[in-house]
Amino acid sequence: MSQLSESYCEACDVNAKCLEPAEIEDLMSQVEGWEVIEESGVPKLKRVFSTKNYARSMLLTNEIAALAESINHHPLMIVEYSSVTVVWWSHKIKGLHKNDFIMAAKTSALF
Amino acid sequence: MSQLSESYCEACDVNAKCLEPAEIEDLMSQVEGWEVIEESGVPKLKRVFSTKNYARSMLLTNEIAALAESINHHPLMIVEYSSVTVVWWSHKIKGLHKNDFIMAAKTSALF
Repeated sequence: MSQLSESYCEACDVNAKCLEPAEIEDLMSQVEGWEVIEESGVPKLKRVFSTKNYARSMLLTNEIAALAESINHHPLMIVEYSSVTVVWWSHKIKGLHKNDFIMAAKTSALF
Repeated sequence: MSQLSESYCEACDVNAKCLEPAEIEDLMSQVEGWEVIEESGVPKLKRVFSTKNYARSMLLTNEIAALAESINHHPLMIVEYSSVTVVWWSHKIKGLHKNDFIMAAKTSALF
């Protein structure tokens, strides 16, 4: 079991530091299936979860939403018939925080 | 009230005809706030619904999902903290069918 999925995601403020590339590389080994993408210069964590049907997609979407609300850290989700794409990043620091890896691991654990 | 939102969306098959540009232009006047976008050569109907918070975003997402399931025609939805972006098109014919305008009008009526 990934240690990250058991970690606690603490709210980060605008002064929190973005992860360094070496730190990201290290954490990537703990979030299988996730990739780092870059949008408008902001690195983000992305994974596409394939599902059997729309009901499963909506079930997963609602589970991720409940997790997000419980911690007050919210991803972008793209809901389609047989997939849910999830993207995590820290809006306040315009980059990746360890929190995002924790949330990615928790998201994978829901799947 | 838009007539489209009261119309019935019938399943279209692969032989159904895509709407002609003039037909699209005519129907656009009935779906305020929606725009036609093109992705990989496929025209689609898109609208961003701004919400007050995440709970409202998820409520709208679930309402649209219930509508989609009831008619077996499913949009792409992008769920964010204070917005839900909805994209309708007809996968089978790789374009826009009148059904998509009906669904767009029904989506707006939910909002």
